[in-house]
Parts: sequence; structure tokens; C-alpha cells
Amino acid sequence: MKENKYDDPVFFAHYSHMARSEQGLAGAGEWPTLEPLLPPFAGKRVLDLGCGFGWHARYAADHGAAEVIASDISEKMLAAAREKNAHPAITYRQEAFEDADYPAGHFDLVLCSLMLHYLADYGTFLKKVRRWLKAGGTLLFTVEHPTFTAYGSQDWYYGPGGEILHFPVDRYFLEGKRDALFLGEHVVKYHRTLTTYLDGLLQEGFTLLRIQEPQPAAEMVQSIPGMADELRRPMMLIVLAQKQ
Amino acid sequence: MKENKYDDPVFFAHYSHMARSEQGLAGAGEWPTLEPLLPPFAGKRVLDLGCGFGWHARYAADHGAAEVIASDISEKMLAAAREKNAHPAITYRQEAFEDADYPAGHFDLVLCSLMLHYLADYGTFLKKVRRWLKAGGTLLFTVEHPTFTAYGSQDWYYGPGGEILHFPVDRYFLEGKRDALFLGEHVVKYHRTLTTYLDGLLQEGFTLLRIQEPQPAAEMVQSIPGMADELRRPMMLIVLAQKQ
Repeated sequence: MKENKYDDPVFFAHYSHMARSEQGLAGAGEWPTLEPLLPPFAGKRVLDLGCGFGWHARYAADHGAAEVIASDISEKMLAAAREKNAHPAITYRQEAFEDADYPAGHFDLVLCSLMLHYLADYGTFLKKVRRWLKAGGTLLFTVEHPTFTAYGSQDWYYGPGGEILHFPVDRYFLEGKRDALFLGEHVVKYHRTLTTYLDGLLQEGFTLLRIQEPQPAAEMVQSIPGMADELRRPMMLIVLAQKQ
Repeated sequence: MKENKYDDPVFFAHYSHMARSEQGLAGAGEWPTLEPLLPPFAGKRVLDLGCGFGWHARYAADHGAAEVIASDISEKMLAAAREKNAHPAITYRQEAFEDADYPAGHFDLVLCSLMLHYLADYGTFLKKVRRWLKAGGTLLFTVEHPTFTAYGSQDWYYGPGGEILHFPVDRYFLEGKRDALFLGEHVVKYHRTLTTYLDGLLQEGFTLLRIQEPQPAAEMVQSIPGMADELRRPMMLIVLAQKQ
């Protein structure tokens, strides 16, 4: 149940060479959309769930966060995080989300970047995060878009000449495990509907502050081969929500 | 710019034989999801935009609304509405949304069922509706889902034997006109992203109360041929929002 593909040596090697791994936030396509949504960090207590290489944790610490707890299930990811993004305010912890527990009302902000589609139980995620947040605290997550995760393979549908025809959607209302091909490897991911993600937050006592589907900036579309295809289907959902 | 396919005699004849036209709310697949989201109507002032045959207006009046203004661009739709769903509390008005204006702060509830994908300018829609609503008033709309409208044709992608393979998505971030095939006729519809629909509401001073993608009930899936395919892709989005 606890997905940890990132400790697979082959997959980890591939992941380590993605732009977002080598360049950090500047190499992440969603960053120009995500950064303006971040609340002020000065003096704040931050929890970064699924911290990976620690780029967001480091950003929070560099911007004045008083305390950053950054957790990840993967030993390899954390070893890289401690090397690339060490900071006195950051505590890195190896921990599956399923096993995590923190004091109630402790955090001002919970960050969760591209972890939720590896998590089997979103309902428990919402309950835990709500408990750990102060009243008025915020949750900012990015997750693979339901349109992107529904079919399963996460690949385009190609024509006979190998050209992209479109992106396929199927099994949308059938939530659960998918066998995705990511960086050439089979990875278990979980598909959920938009209703589950967004109405789930509302039903759990969060207010939705912002909802964004990032798209590449015009200059990226012109300068990077293949980037124009990223305008053809949504790949990611960014949600900023506040605990009532 | 003002789309009025419903006064095309052939299209109107086809539309008039849909289950939602003949049976009213009970024949609309989204009704079991929509009805529980409706606020209490007793004594309320209701505006029903794109009222069609008047089923929602009649429901509001039957449940005690003090005043229901129900408008539609289509003369044929309104003629049927006045015949099928007349009620002393309802005033039917032939009017394109683009030309509509109402007193500021007048309405407790604005309903808008499956009209927005015919409207070129969503930004103006939000500004108008916000102005017409009382503080604390609500907007409840249904609209074709961005995943459903992106590609344009609104049809499945078929295999060589005519079997459904999946639903195609393309041009997602390219908002604007689409040439959709609906009831065998070409109809102009407008595609928008989820971000535009939902973040647009947030940026315009609405709070999101509920977000739902309706899916057919289990008994419908079992008893109605082809209904199981409705679980394969989202077709509709239901949003309940409140003016701050």
C-alpha cells in the first residue's frame, strides 16, 4: 500500500536527471503558477509532505520559515535532499505518510507536491492535514490531473505514423490504482475524480482559495521542443485551501 | 455571438424528444446529484438563466419561491415552457443573456442549467450575476465538463469495428469555439478550462460551496443500455457558489 518507487535504483536514476531534479524549482514547469500562490513564510511552521529533493522545503526556509518538517518515504530522495538542500530550519524525516503523526494545530502551512497520486487513501490525508493545521492555516498541493490519471498509461494516443492524435480518457469514475508508465518504468498511481479532490476538501471543512491548472509559459512553448503538446491536455492540478 | 440553436426547427424537434425534455427533471441524468444542492426556495427570489422548458423554474415555484424570473433566448423553448410549466410565481422572458440586466442585489439564487457552454463571455457572466445577487446569495450552475468540451466533437474515439475505445482530449488550454455534434446537428459551443470556471469564481468574489461531477446511479447503469459508458468520462460539472 505504501508506494515507494523512488528507492528503485533504475527509476531513481531516471528521476534524478529530470529538469525538476537537476535545476530545482526553476526546472519545474508548474513553478511559475505555483510560486505566486505561496503564502508568506516568515516565522511560519511548515510541513512538506513528500518533500523529494527538498526544493520546496528549502524555498520555505530561505524565505524565513521558523520550522520546516520535510518528510518523504524514500531514503534515496532524502539523502539527496540533505545534500542539496540542507538548512538549519529544515528537519528531514524518512517517513511514509501513512505512518506520520504530528501535534494538532501545529502547522501554518502544509505543502504537498505531487505526492497524492501515490497515496491510496485521500480521505485520511484530509483528516490528518486538517488536524495538524492551525485554524486559518493553509494546505497547498499539486497533484496529477484527473483527466491525466483516468486512463492509466498517462501516454498520448498515437496514429499509425507514431504521431500524437490526442490524449485518451477512460474509466474516469472508476477511482483507484493505475499502472502508469513514467520515465520508462511501471509505477503504481491512484486516480481520483475532481469531485473527490475538491468537494472532498469542502466537505472536510476547508475553504478553496485558488484552483489552477498550470500550463507552460509562451516562451517555453516556443523554445522547448514538444512543449506545445502540453497545451493539449491538463497534466496537473494546483489547489490552495484554508482550514476553517 | 448569441447562440440560439434551439430555434432551429430540426434541432428543436430532436431536443424535444430527449428524456430531459419529455420527463423533466426526472429524465435528467444529473438531477439526483443536483437536487440535494438546491437551497431552500421558500420566499426567495430566483433567476433562472437559460430556463429552457422551465423545469427548474417550476421546481423553484412549487417549492415556495416568491418570484421566479426565467429567461431564455429561444422563442420555441419559452413557448413550451409556458405550456408545460406555467405557474403564478414564474415570469418567462425571451432574452439573450448578453442583453439581460436586473437590479443590483435583487436575487437570492441564480440558477443556470447547461447554458454556459453556449456563452462566449464567461467573465461578464460572473460580473453580472454577482451584481444581481444579494450578499450571501448563491449561484448554482451546471455546465458541460472541460474534459468533455476540449476536443470539440464531443464524441467517443472508435475502433475499426465501431466500438468505443476511449474519449479524446485535445486543445485543452485553447479556449473558445468548438463545433460540436449534438443530436445529429452541428452546434457551436465554447470550451473553457476548469481553472477558468472555478478560479474565475474565486477571483470574482464567490466562495465555492460544492463541486460535483454527476455520474449515473448504479441502477441506471444496469438497466439502461449504453449508460455504463457514462462512467468512462465526465460530461458535466455542477458548481454551487456563494457571493461574499
